[in-house]
Amino acid sequence: MGVNERVDDTVYIGVDIGGTNLRSALVDGSGNILEMKKDKCRIDLGARSAAETLAAQCLGLARSAEDRGLVLGAIGVGVAGKIDKAAETVVFSPNLPPLDGYPLGIELGKRTGSPVFMENDANVFGLGESFAGAAKGIDNWAGMTLGTGVGGCLILGGALWEGDGLGFCAEIGHVIIQPDGPPCACGSKGCLESFSSATALVKGAKRLVREGGMREGMLFELWRENALSADTIYECAKKGDGPSLSLFETMGWALGVAISNLFSVLGIRHAVIGGGVSAAWDVFIGPLEASLAHSISMLDPELAVIRRSALGDDAALIGAARVAQIGLRGQAK
Amino acid sequence: MGVNERVDDTVYIGVDIGGTNLRSALVDGSGNILEMKKDKCRIDLGARSAAETLAAQCLGLARSAEDRGLVLGAIGVGVAGKIDKAAETVVFSPNLPPLDGYPLGIELGKRTGSPVFMENDANVFGLGESFAGAAKGIDNWAGMTLGTGVGGCLILGGALWEGDGLGFCAEIGHVIIQPDGPPCACGSKGCLESFSSATALVKGAKRLVREGGMREGMLFELWRENALSADTIYECAKKGDGPSLSLFETMGWALGVAISNLFSVLGIRHAVIGGGVSAAWDVFIGPLEASLAHSISMLDPELAVIRRSALGDDAALIGAARVAQIGLRGQAK
Repeated sequence: MGVNERVDDTVYIGVDIGGTNLRSALVDGSGNILEMKKDKCRIDLGARSAAETLAAQCLGLARSAEDRGLVLGAIGVGVAGKIDKAAETVVFSPNLPPLDGYPLGIELGKRTGSPVFMENDANVFGLGESFAGAAKGIDNWAGMTLGTGVGGCLILGGALWEGDGLGFCAEIGHVIIQPDGPPCACGSKGCLESFSSATALVKGAKRLVREGGMREGMLFELWRENALSADTIYECAKKGDGPSLSLFETMGWALGVAISNLFSVLGIRHAVIGGGVSAAWDVFIGPLEASLAHSISMLDPELAVIRRSALGDDAALIGAARVAQIGLRGQAK
Repeated sequence: MGVNERVDDTVYIGVDIGGTNLRSALVDGSGNILEMKKDKCRIDLGARSAAETLAAQCLGLARSAEDRGLVLGAIGVGVAGKIDKAAETVVFSPNLPPLDGYPLGIELGKRTGSPVFMENDANVFGLGESFAGAAKGIDNWAGMTLGTGVGGCLILGGALWEGDGLGFCAEIGHVIIQPDGPPCACGSKGCLESFSSATALVKGAKRLVREGGMREGMLFELWRENALSADTIYECAKKGDGPSLSLFETMGWALGVAISNLFSVLGIRHAVIGGGVSAAWDVFIGPLEASLAHSISMLDPELAVIRRSALGDDAALIGAARVAQIGLRGQAK
């Protein structure tokens, strides 16, 4: 037990850096959010401005902790992209380019006086769902976050699996599902991300309109209004629009193949799916389960457990706080 | 340290049960084979007869150990198929059906008076190569054995990864490479095994002859003589026969995609390939490496390390002895 775990009144701050919002939360040692702060992410003002906003949120939460008679342990930060944990630096952030190369962790530490630990967003999701969400009590599972891209995490033996520490791990979005499939942003073809992300839905809709010669219908109208998005396509699917449903069928099919492969290789049977696009659960879970049952020969499909994220947006905050808790424990060893 | 490891003179017996031969070896604690015994596998005489042959080999090796002033620790048994380790029973052995349901470990223990530990052949390969072969000193790696089928193993954190203990794990042969690919024996389509096994080579050659309308050439002659096998097709490929080379190109291509996916998911960069068909290394490693470089976007292909089994047939014996060593250590805890 680390020095900071002797008392039950230690709390942590979890920080979620998204393209839309900067959020921080005070989280207790059991994963309950006590208080949350949120500001618009004005990344156009630069990395330093973002760090200042986050520091102000954290200092506010730290004061709140003190008022409550609680002890602040550390700050955990989740951010999309490649992180250099040792240097507390964002190496490459696809959605927030001004952060590239910025020593966010160090700056936040200076401004708050607290230890800061960083982790990528998919791993933060994994830690959050493991600690207090859909995967609580499950030792081995694979996680997928469906958003602009597809993120992934692996929890093995109850801990985040980090592989050889090569700077990438659990890149489930870049598992190849169909070698001659659509081009992926990563440069390869037929990756899961090219079938099962928001980007894939929009691209798929455009393909239906342009190559399919669509001249009417819901997707055509959205296309004409330049209003195609995962959300709007989902709205059409919910209304029973065939072409929109077919896009979610493809999404579910690819997820089923990917999960089948993960289960066969890892000898596991649990997966948790989160991220913004998981809101469309009702229109892709059927095709996903059918595809999984069709693909997997090693496991009785009845034993497969595919869960939707239980924490939603809170996974990022609770998971980031968990990064702080685990980081502090590691340091105290 | 377990009670049986206090002294350096403890040795182990590794048993390899193959369709052709029954082999046992006396192996020291560092993975050196001291002595080996081999008999034809007359599985047509039944499981009991096989157990008697193996017991005779083990008793001979035990006497030899005694003569050498060494202490026999335990016996480890490797066998293709699904093993119930707790019951020391072969649940299902595709190549040796008479073993199905036979409590081989218990029978061998009764006849020899030694503790017996069982493991499937792909995992035994992994333990052997980790302990004394191509993967010595490598903490995280994926193994593939190319034979009638394609076996797999995962070594994570220096230990055999066993997943949830569902009775399957590291089924790399049943990772789907191409969802609309050739049918696989497992019931699915486009599995690695349907591209990269001895069976796939022979099926591929037959397809070239029948569907490709082949009327002459090396593969046609082999087909006419009913002499198609991985070995004979490899002989043709070595002589530069184009159709034969194309079959190994497909094999290498599929292995490259599979390894790319394993590396992306696990965040690792080492793989070891063994099994009988790995003898054709020179004709598939080029296509494999090209396919891996083409498929993987997360890792600099220069950092990927694909090694051929260093122990060959001995991996099964050394790995089985390692199963005994680890099993005994576990018991002594």
